[in-house]
Formats: sequence, structure tokens, C-alpha cells
Amino acid sequence: MKEIIAIVRRHQVPASKKALEEAGFNALTIQSVEGHGKQKGMGGWAAEVDPQLRPLLKSETPAGDSFMKWVPKRMLTLAVQDDEVEKAVNALIKVNQTGHIGDGKLFICPLEEVVRVRTGENGPRAIS
Amino acid sequence: MKEIIAIVRRHQVPASKKALEEAGFNALTIQSVEGHGKQKGMGGWAAEVDPQLRPLLKSETPAGDSFMKWVPKRMLTLAVQDDEVEKAVNALIKVNQTGHIGDGKLFICPLEEVVRVRTGENGPRAIS
Amino acid sequence: MKEIIAIVRRHQVPASKKALEEAGFNALTIQSVEGHGKQKGMGGWAAEVDPQLRPLLKSETPAGDSFMKWVPKRMLTLAVQDDEVEKAVNALIKVNQTGHIGDGKLFICPLEEVVRVRTGENGPRAIS
Repeated sequence: MKEIIAIVRRHQVPASKKALEEAGFNALTIQSVEGHGKQKGMGGWAAEVDPQLRPLLKSETPAGDSFMKWVPKRMLTLAVQDDEVEKAVNALIKVNQTGHIGDGKLFICPLEEVVRVRTGENGPRAIS
Repeated sequence: MKEIIAIVRRHQVPASKKALEEAGFNALTIQSVEGHGKQKGMGGWAAEVDPQLRPLLKSETPAGDSFMKWVPKRMLTLAVQDDEVEKAVNALIKVNQTGHIGDGKLFICPLEEVVRVRTGENGPRAIS
Repeated sequence: MKEIIAIVRRHQVPASKKALEEAGFNALTIQSVEGHGKQKGMGGWAAEVDPQLRPLLKSETPAGDSFMKWVPKRMLTLAVQDDEVEKAVNALIKVNQTGHIGDGKLFICPLEEVVRVRTGENGPRAIS
């Protein structure tokens, strides 16, 4: 099994969820994160900065180090079977690729076990 | 070493922490996440939706795609030695298993190294 | 490739980011987490408790189980190539090590693949 972590634009969450569901991936976790990449969040990302986060980011940012560098993103995490990684990755790229800076990144990590707490069942049966 | 990631009900955090401590696991990180599984957060989960998150979720959700589908959860993360995975998993299942939808999931990932920043020590000594 | 997860003090985020950039690591994700370690967040950490989180933590904490035990932290995540783990770890230790409780921890996990959504490129080229 693998864990796929996707960092995507905030407004792309519903489309990403829909694309994953259509590809057969129903279980998903979402978190709020802030990111900056090679471009350090400048330019086209500026408009994306979450006003709610500004005070937080500002208070942690020394003068001269613009808070604009941190861009609010959503982190989607899902567990998939080894032979379904490509399908999930393709689904995520299809809806998130605009060709513009800030499209996000996908990380694939090894996942040794999944356990559904309700039933105690584990492995592939516990994924969905 | 392994990393155990537990997605649990919000009100189960204190019980989970206590159970882990009693099993000898003192170091823990907690995050706010939203999840949806096979059941898409319908039914019994509806009452769990965090009022604070509703505006956020709503703004990211197109009409007709109920925000009820996202359920606020807590993600607990801890590092354990290989031979203690079972003990930690059992402790988490014992307190979180109600048999109802929404009991949560556990993910076990490989963890290659842990470093305690204060002392620079690494490996098992840095886990607790 | 490896994923480095660093749990650090909130006010150390800008210094950590700067140190990582100077070491050549430009892509970074940040999350708000709460942690407690061996010392359970007592003592010197008390002053760090985020007032915004107090109601949340309190509501999840049964009487007698002080919310002081949870300390707000920041989680930094970055992807690095295998031969650059040491450089990143050293950069993070250098700026975060005060010798006092609460300096934080680093976790190094295996990372099988990274994909830049914008271009579809993967592997080391997608890291930065």
C-alpha cells in the first residue's frame, strides 16, 4: 500500500475529491497547510493568501520577510493499493494541472498497514 | 521504527492520549483534519460537524455538494519502535472502537530516523 | 528521496525557513500542530500555549487533565534527496537547538516519489 499526499489549491478541493471518487477512491483526509516552493509564493499566488492566516503569519515573520511567501493550500491524504497509485496520481493531475505556478505537488510514501478501528480489519480491506 | 497515524473522533483525544500514556507512549502530536470515508460523512456523523469549519467548507464546496460530507477529526501521530506497534495499535483500538461509523483509521508507516533537537540524540532514545 | 518532518517552536519558523533556504532547500510546507513529549508540556512550555487554541483544547480535555499539556507547535515538511538529509537536519538543529525542553523533534521517512503537478515531472527534479 502507498500513502499519497497531495498539496493543492484550496478551491480545487471539491474537484479533486470528485475526481478521486470517480476513480474509486472514497476515503480521504484534508488538512490546512501553508506552502512555498521554488517561487516562494510570489506573483500570481498573492491573491490566494488567506486573510484569516495573515495575522498568524505576520506575527511569525520578521520585518522585511513578507508573509506573502506563505501560500495557504490544502493537503489531501489517501491510502491506495500499490497497483492503483498511477490511477490516483493521474486523477489528481488531471484536475489540478493548470500549467501555472502553484499547481501543487504529490508525494508518494510507503504505507505498511491500515486498520479500520470500527471492525479491526486491516490491509486493503481497510483502505476504502 | 514506525510512525503511527491515528484519525479519531475529536472527543476521543483525551482518552486516546491517556491510553497511550498508560501503554508507555508519552510523545504525541495532534492536528485538526477533516475526513470522509466510504460513508462520506453522512448519517451519524452529521452532528459532529464543527460549526467553526462550516463557512470554510461551504466556501470550498459547490452547490449540491453538501459540506456535511467532511467530518472534523483529530489526527494523532506518534513514533514507536517496531516491536511496540501492536501495543500502540491495541491501545488506540480499545478506546476508539464503538462499532459505529466514524471510529476512525490507523496508518502505520516506516520511519527511518528520529532526532531530538535539544540533545541531538537519535533513534529509539529520541522517541519518547 | 526522504521526507523530513520537523516539529519546532512557532517563533522558530522564519529562522528555520531561512536556514533551509541558505542550505538550498526552497520548497516547504507548514502546519499548525499541538504536541506533548516526555515532559508533557509542563514548566517552560506553559507560556507558549496559544490563547486561540485554549477553548478548543479545553473542550476536549476532561476536568483535571490540564490543557497546558498540549503545546502549539509548527510542523515543517520538506522533501530531500538521500544525500542531502544530513545537510537539512544540521540546518534545522542549528537554528532550533536551545538546549531547553521544547526544542522539538525531526522525523525522517522514506519517500518513493514526488510529482510536480504543473509539469508532471517527477523524482529529484520535482523536489525543489
